[in-house]
Amino acid sequence: MVDKKVRRALEKVVGRKNVLTEPADLLLYSYDSSTARGQPGAVVLPASTEEVSRVVKVCARHGIPFVARGAGTNLSGGSVMLRGGVVIALTRMNRVLEIDVANQRAVVQPGVVNLDLQQALSGHGLQFCPDPASQKVSTIGGNVAENAGGPHCLKYGVTLNHVVGLTVVLPSGEVRRLGGKAGTPPGYDLVGLFVGSEGTLGIATEMVLRLRPLPEEAQIVVALFDTLEAAGETVSRIIAAGMLPAALEIMDRATLEAVEASFPSGLRTDVEAILLIELDGPKGTLDRQAGRCASICRELNARSVEIGRTPEERERLWSARRSAFGATARLSPAMLVNDATVPRTRIAEVLREMQKIERRHGVRIAKIFHAGDGNLHSNILFNRDDPEDFKRAEAASAEIFRLCAGAGGTITGEHGVGAEKPEYMRLIYSAEDIEAQRKLREVFDPLGLANPGKVLPERAGVTEGDA
Amino acid sequence: MVDKKVRRALEKVVGRKNVLTEPADLLLYSYDSSTARGQPGAVVLPASTEEVSRVVKVCARHGIPFVARGAGTNLSGGSVMLRGGVVIALTRMNRVLEIDVANQRAVVQPGVVNLDLQQALSGHGLQFCPDPASQKVSTIGGNVAENAGGPHCLKYGVTLNHVVGLTVVLPSGEVRRLGGKAGTPPGYDLVGLFVGSEGTLGIATEMVLRLRPLPEEAQIVVALFDTLEAAGETVSRIIAAGMLPAALEIMDRATLEAVEASFPSGLRTDVEAILLIELDGPKGTLDRQAGRCASICRELNARSVEIGRTPEERERLWSARRSAFGATARLSPAMLVNDATVPRTRIAEVLREMQKIERRHGVRIAKIFHAGDGNLHSNILFNRDDPEDFKRAEAASAEIFRLCAGAGGTITGEHGVGAEKPEYMRLIYSAEDIEAQRKLREVFDPLGLANPGKVLPERAGVTEGDA
Repeated sequence: MVDKKVRRALEKVVGRKNVLTEPADLLLYSYDSSTARGQPGAVVLPASTEEVSRVVKVCARHGIPFVARGAGTNLSGGSVMLRGGVVIALTRMNRVLEIDVANQRAVVQPGVVNLDLQQALSGHGLQFCPDPASQKVSTIGGNVAENAGGPHCLKYGVTLNHVVGLTVVLPSGEVRRLGGKAGTPPGYDLVGLFVGSEGTLGIATEMVLRLRPLPEEAQIVVALFDTLEAAGETVSRIIAAGMLPAALEIMDRATLEAVEASFPSGLRTDVEAILLIELDGPKGTLDRQAGRCASICRELNARSVEIGRTPEERERLWSARRSAFGATARLSPAMLVNDATVPRTRIAEVLREMQKIERRHGVRIAKIFHAGDGNLHSNILFNRDDPEDFKRAEAASAEIFRLCAGAGGTITGEHGVGAEKPEYMRLIYSAEDIEAQRKLREVFDPLGLANPGKVLPERAGVTEGDA
Repeated sequence: MVDKKVRRALEKVVGRKNVLTEPADLLLYSYDSSTARGQPGAVVLPASTEEVSRVVKVCARHGIPFVARGAGTNLSGGSVMLRGGVVIALTRMNRVLEIDVANQRAVVQPGVVNLDLQQALSGHGLQFCPDPASQKVSTIGGNVAENAGGPHCLKYGVTLNHVVGLTVVLPSGEVRRLGGKAGTPPGYDLVGLFVGSEGTLGIATEMVLRLRPLPEEAQIVVALFDTLEAAGETVSRIIAAGMLPAALEIMDRATLEAVEASFPSGLRTDVEAILLIELDGPKGTLDRQAGRCASICRELNARSVEIGRTPEERERLWSARRSAFGATARLSPAMLVNDATVPRTRIAEVLREMQKIERRHGVRIAKIFHAGDGNLHSNILFNRDDPEDFKRAEAASAEIFRLCAGAGGTITGEHGVGAEKPEYMRLIYSAEDIEAQRKLREVFDPLGLANPGKVLPERAGVTEGDA
């Protein structure tokens, strides 16, 4: 726990009731959706940029590490405080400050839940494109920190492509405005640098988002396959045919079974893979595209192909997809979420290798893919109470990362590096590359207090942290 | 000129005929399309990443500044060597190394001309979206260094959104690979940081580009207006109606006259503004959208509205737009290209103020706008032989930057800051913001040899350079 002096200084900023130090409270903030765990010394709930700035200044003055936290849905440990210190929970900063319809921009606070924003926008015929599967819960602040993806990022790009301005509290406590409503700011792209920096360069307290008109229509094509590879190959052919669906998602049998068991929606579970193809665009254009996608599915021997044209049908199928993560978690006391990416054309080959890894380590892996982006989520199921089982899961996860990195891919698609994967950075980057990133980090955070232990591996080759 | 020892060292890397030191040769590399001028000490033409690396190492060893150069079409002085030193011309590195149709990626060298790449891609039904007006001449290396835009960036985003990997020679001469074909790389977004860094962080010698399918169809709506404001207001209404055209371009009367005088294409020159609306998308969707755009133009009292549906008609209108810059240059011995950006909704208001600036300074300004992005190109015509006239142009340009910055805009849309605008950075950034950017630059370039004098203003408040 933080000492009395620090506690009083924090209380002076946010008021006594917004500083939590009771063990029961601290426990609630000691985990996220990853395997990382770490109990903070205090949790502070500021209400404004000004308060965040003053809280960070208290931390800087006392040499206390800090991490910002939204809904805690992070899948790589990014929002867990590894070294004692202060969790800055931004849940009270949850207002949509402005929806500028004419300029297609929204200005929001970090604690706004993604889906709440979408609902506020849809009345204006607009959307914020990034739609992580966690969107019912996760906040825009977290989406920005992790450069979140989501099914629709295939067509519309990840969070990075939809943030044009940030108000940022630097690790010194200073407040900076980066970018804004108009155009690309001159000089270095600091907005882009902050997006996805996982809380290691500072805390974004206000974000200016790029909006897009909602598509006039959407349709969904659902195909069932007897092999994962056939589903993967179908994805490649659809793209090669020059189509750019809004989403191309694959779920494997283990995931289908989990979804049906938890949220019955009539999905068949006797197939090895389901491919969801969402198409969107102007009225009158989708029937032909859906037909072309269906033909390609049949060429690859899909067992059945169904086209969903009504909003109800689409919603049913999408909600199954969005529930997949939670449903999968019910299959097993715990799971290790592997989030790797490979060039789209190597999906089928990588899937074959992954099945070998599964057998070799005796683990069950439920697979959900943003297949159009080559982003493979392998949920490795394990029993948290069995240390041997966890080791097997970790070994399988490490092999998957090596496999994907070796195939020209990378170790994260949209979940970040966080606390779980800094060591895997060495699969992608040389020691010099990592050192360059460290220097860059030190420009913003010379004291090393902003979310330490995350993203970059330790110099000695050992990951620190108490996870 | 560089001394003999340096010259020999450079010749050892690239061969004698690829090191130019004759005054006549140096003169050719002493300018670009901006007002900046500076004669290099030598011009070196390397043929590979390896050679660029060794050339930069020679520069680093001897403390000689260097700048990479493509076609020299830069509009803010980015490719001019301000302090003697070495121009590294990348024109020999002009190969398209790979077109990976299935993954929709291209790997190219920096000297590839934008339009040559487009032509190589179109056979595969693909495109590289950034299409600067200079695309017939300008190179991908320059497009990346400047984060180039172009008419189609309204719908598809600027260069930043289409570069996924870079091979970079750092100012130390070390070679780094950033990003790659698959997904967003983990850690900090160094690819994004390099794109648009105007040669101040190193030299990109190979780029992995994101491609997109060519649209199935395109149509163009051309409307003539009696006031610039009406054209600007039309743009706002089209966007507010939820449409996202591929391009929304405005040219004013001065520009129209210039284009007609140089490249007669039947444009009317008795109107104050022409608005070009390009729509693209799947077959069968454009007639209705074009009709809606035409109605909006008529609501704003367009004098005439024409819809161009054939490729020939579109090409004629676009080539007029693309020629506008060159044609405008013929109106006057020289012009100062002002490239500012404002929030789209403030275009009409800013245009009114610009007309006042024109009258106040007694200058003629030919205006071409990427209006959908709020990116205003004001070409201020002046006589280079008349120092007083140049001063008037500079004063008008400074006022336009202040006007746009005050309206929530910024000082560059797509031409970069270069040598012309570092001092204007102070309109956008505080001294602390600029200092943070300087520190970031020093991480990559501690010796300050990579394109010095560009982008950031000098600490003392005086822009250096011999321009």
